[in-house]
Amino acid sequence: MKITSTQNPTVKDLVRLRKRRERDATGLFLIEGYRELRRALEADIDLTHLYYCPDLFLGGNEPALLDLAASRGARLIEMAEAPFRKVSYRDRPEGLIAKARQFPVDLQRLVLPDHPLVLVVESIEKPGNLGTMLRTADAAGADAVIVCDPTTDPFNPNVVRASIGCLFTVPLAVADTQSTVHSLRDREIRSFASTPSTNRLYWEADYRVGSAIVVGSEQYGLSDAWLQGADERIRIPMAGDADSLNAAMAAGILLFEAVRQRMVPAGDRKERTAGT
Amino acid sequence: MKITSTQNPTVKDLVRLRKRRERDATGLFLIEGYRELRRALEADIDLTHLYYCPDLFLGGNEPALLDLAASRGARLIEMAEAPFRKVSYRDRPEGLIAKARQFPVDLQRLVLPDHPLVLVVESIEKPGNLGTMLRTADAAGADAVIVCDPTTDPFNPNVVRASIGCLFTVPLAVADTQSTVHSLRDREIRSFASTPSTNRLYWEADYRVGSAIVVGSEQYGLSDAWLQGADERIRIPMAGDADSLNAAMAAGILLFEAVRQRMVPAGDRKERTAGT
Repeated sequence: MKITSTQNPTVKDLVRLRKRRERDATGLFLIEGYRELRRALEADIDLTHLYYCPDLFLGGNEPALLDLAASRGARLIEMAEAPFRKVSYRDRPEGLIAKARQFPVDLQRLVLPDHPLVLVVESIEKPGNLGTMLRTADAAGADAVIVCDPTTDPFNPNVVRASIGCLFTVPLAVADTQSTVHSLRDREIRSFASTPSTNRLYWEADYRVGSAIVVGSEQYGLSDAWLQGADERIRIPMAGDADSLNAAMAAGILLFEAVRQRMVPAGDRKERTAGT
Repeated sequence: MKITSTQNPTVKDLVRLRKRRERDATGLFLIEGYRELRRALEADIDLTHLYYCPDLFLGGNEPALLDLAASRGARLIEMAEAPFRKVSYRDRPEGLIAKARQFPVDLQRLVLPDHPLVLVVESIEKPGNLGTMLRTADAAGADAVIVCDPTTDPFNPNVVRASIGCLFTVPLAVADTQSTVHSLRDREIRSFASTPSTNRLYWEADYRVGSAIVVGSEQYGLSDAWLQGADERIRIPMAGDADSLNAAMAAGILLFEAVRQRMVPAGDRKERTAGT
């Protein structure tokens, strides 16, 4: 059963999944790397096949991961180094790549706790940016990321990679702007649009209520729909030129201000500022 | 004078400057792109030659930039598209690339204002990360970035690119950890080492004094030299796994907490928290 030839049809199958058309047609996508697969398994992502190449393993934890994947129903298939390097999407492959079933990302299915913290991204310039945002949302403990650009494919291998698997840990929805505005309103989540065109600094807003932080693209900023539709507009003060923060960095700074406000008890805040 | 052939020796010269050995030997480096060159000219970086390809220009501002560069002593040399694409480091070249003289990055030359805000990075996993940090430091109005890894080459084309030219706007020094610890102490700058091994949350520290925010690599964190040598240890609370914030993102979150503290007047802080 070991795949030894780079001409094996499976190799071509896997390479084809780098293309969106193939992913859309099959409902499958690729997950490569140890951290990514560990997070996928923790999140109960359905792996259909896991291809592995022991010669490329970096550590000693891979066999346990293979066992876990097998127990969840993944077919394990060994690959020689040459075909593995061909299917790998990385410069330094770690010997693990899986074919997985896509999961639904529609907004209606998104289940949120009370007073959630949500990141809304209006458009994604590069798949890697969405990955970085998912990673940062995971660190901030955000309850969801909503991408307001129905053309975004979250199953792009660059999203998986840049998110180091946080695509599987942070609930994600892809929707259009109008549905998102309505959905946030229905759920009583206050929206905060980040824009240079307001005097209100981002720390002057209160994110302890259910909050959606809304960021646009680096190049074009937020659309009018968001600038008008959001409950509040907030600004990150910029010492340099307006282009010096990338969208993911802006999202991280805003999310962690919400984290700070939510973690600092009101009493402590009083005490601290009174003492200064 | 127009360069029309991909075999022209200048093409090879420029491509060679992608290698560190060549940059070290010549003291030169490459600056590509409109935004990058605009920032370089604003910062009085010494461009020796500016190669341009009008067919690749994106907008209408390039001629003014060429004039400015010429007035500062750069030799302007036109290039046809084929050789330009060969020297370009980008997928979508903008028709502008310059050869420039490296500038000194030694710590002793770093001039800082009173109560500066400094970012210290102990090691850089990828040149692009240093670029992102420079960009973020620029946005935060940081007074300098110090890289504590004497093997770092800030003139790597990926630093220039990821910094979108903020390499020229933010004062930069490259030094070893020991010299940096001493220099900060001599200059009465308090150092704050970011580490998961402390209970002190980053917003509990006071960055309104002269402050150096010190971040390590994603993979290994800070060295003992910094963990022991810093005046304070601070932690970014992480909801997800420890690896979910990349080093540049951590730096941005910490720098902007310093910005917040420095911009919120003590009076306002009291007022706001008293009202909550």
